[in-house]
Amino acid sequence: MTLASPTRIALAGIGKIARDQHIPHIAASPDFELVAAVTGHAAPDGVPGFKTIDEMMAAMPDVQAISICTPPRGRLSLIQQALDHGLDVMIEKPPAATLSEAQAFARAAEQAGKVLFATWHSREAAAVEPARQWLATRTIRRVAVNWKEDVRVWHPGQAWIWEPGIGVFDPGINALSVITRILPRPLLLDAAELRFPSNRDAPIAADLDFTDTAGVPVRVEFDFDQTGPQTWDVDVETDDGQLKLSMGASQMAVDGTPVDVGDEPEYARLYRRFAECLRDRVSDVDLSPFVHVNDAFLLGRRVTVGEFSE
Amino acid sequence: MTLASPTRIALAGIGKIARDQHIPHIAASPDFELVAAVTGHAAPDGVPGFKTIDEMMAAMPDVQAISICTPPRGRLSLIQQALDHGLDVMIEKPPAATLSEAQAFARAAEQAGKVLFATWHSREAAAVEPARQWLATRTIRRVAVNWKEDVRVWHPGQAWIWEPGIGVFDPGINALSVITRILPRPLLLDAAELRFPSNRDAPIAADLDFTDTAGVPVRVEFDFDQTGPQTWDVDVETDDGQLKLSMGASQMAVDGTPVDVGDEPEYARLYRRFAECLRDRVSDVDLSPFVHVNDAFLLGRRVTVGEFSE
Repeated sequence: MTLASPTRIALAGIGKIARDQHIPHIAASPDFELVAAVTGHAAPDGVPGFKTIDEMMAAMPDVQAISICTPPRGRLSLIQQALDHGLDVMIEKPPAATLSEAQAFARAAEQAGKVLFATWHSREAAAVEPARQWLATRTIRRVAVNWKEDVRVWHPGQAWIWEPGIGVFDPGINALSVITRILPRPLLLDAAELRFPSNRDAPIAADLDFTDTAGVPVRVEFDFDQTGPQTWDVDVETDDGQLKLSMGASQMAVDGTPVDVGDEPEYARLYRRFAECLRDRVSDVDLSPFVHVNDAFLLGRRVTVGEFSE
Repeated sequence: MTLASPTRIALAGIGKIARDQHIPHIAASPDFELVAAVTGHAAPDGVPGFKTIDEMMAAMPDVQAISICTPPRGRLSLIQQALDHGLDVMIEKPPAATLSEAQAFARAAEQAGKVLFATWHSREAAAVEPARQWLATRTIRRVAVNWKEDVRVWHPGQAWIWEPGIGVFDPGINALSVITRILPRPLLLDAAELRFPSNRDAPIAADLDFTDTAGVPVRVEFDFDQTGPQTWDVDVETDDGQLKLSMGASQMAVDGTPVDVGDEPEYARLYRRFAECLRDRVSDVDLSPFVHVNDAFLLGRRVTVGEFSE
């Protein structure tokens, strides 16, 4: 489906993810037209840039929606400003710095009668929906998640990733967003270990042991210091075959045999989904991956490991 | 108000808080009759004890409700069993070991059509409602919370308090339950410091800096190693006087002059409130104090301090 006319959308936070994903996918979408940027840095080519949403709306009152890619700190005030100007809002993950903030802006959007789409881009990976359907008819015995990447490659020089809070859960929350979508039952955390570099206030690695509400064990391992091959895998053992998702759930195999799930990029589907939310005037705010992160920080045993150097 | 006939209630978890508070206040309530206990230890005098809810319901199918005072770990399965047997449920704070669990049993109670009362006993302290009303008509400038007690006195030999997780937030969540009730706007955590004894996996002290959604600063200090005088104070500076709550919000003063708020005990009001929930068939589950604890663990900078010895 496409909207009757493209929605005039602004982009806030012009960093790596905006340039790598949002700008090209908005350009390719029939549903959106990128008309402005809110940024303290350079605006994308051919798009007027503004320091604040207030300045943008004073100059361009016909902006209809905003896609927010700033780091999670300070989201509530940005979203509140956007809602005050009557904008519909889409936000990058993680949704906020704290759960209280996320709950506050979810309520604010509801009260304002505006659409809020709290995105989980990994849920739009090509194998997620086929995997969900494949699992729905089988009995799951155990699940193993390995999400291991090199922070130096994916967050080069990004100070916010090491502020007290998210750390390795920034990529890890992608895995949590996938498994909370494909698995049929809620997950409960039994125990966790969080490993903090001695010179950082955020974890660089974590192991999480969940069981689902039917008692199925789900073992999750995150590592942010994985040089060499990168791993973004979910393995599910069932009574009727072994499912493997790899490359961030963009690929799927059953008992070692690849399954064709197409290759549509995550952000193409993400903007299509936002267009659907706008057409139907419904918000999509599922905070459960973020709640699992909170559980891990509350319940996780902390271990100090060696210094991290970039 | 009283219920038409007393509700036949069971008590699960016969520890310090059950003996100090629940048993005498159920005995004094016209709304409840204590008919059974679920415990691995000794049942209260004159009350039959059972190892599990299943055993109790097999022997005494006319039990109508259960009040759960076990440590937070394992609450979900206890509450699910209670709901499966058609019981209405009241739970001690903190509500659960993780937020996912608390959200899961809140959904389960709703689906079962049963009453769930997630209690915050400190919200029933005598000065809370007078303080809320006094603050409602004034402009608040700043708030200071000091909640400092000796864990050796209040949790003697209780291993669960030092498991990864709650620690000093067990008393601290009482303060959070009070301020989230008396202050007019939601609170957002800006920064926190959590101090962990070098030989424990839970914090013994914490400082939290909040602002409310109108920008009012709220400074919160928790300490679990306070020997000598114990402190459970909330100080609120307004445009029209200084409010002080002390002794866990059981006492109130304005500009240093005591205000008579009566002296009804917290747990008398707590059971009266549960009776109201049962009469109206409505649940009361506000997880916001627990969400603030989660925020503190996610965002809090961790500092290791000296060993704790009992």
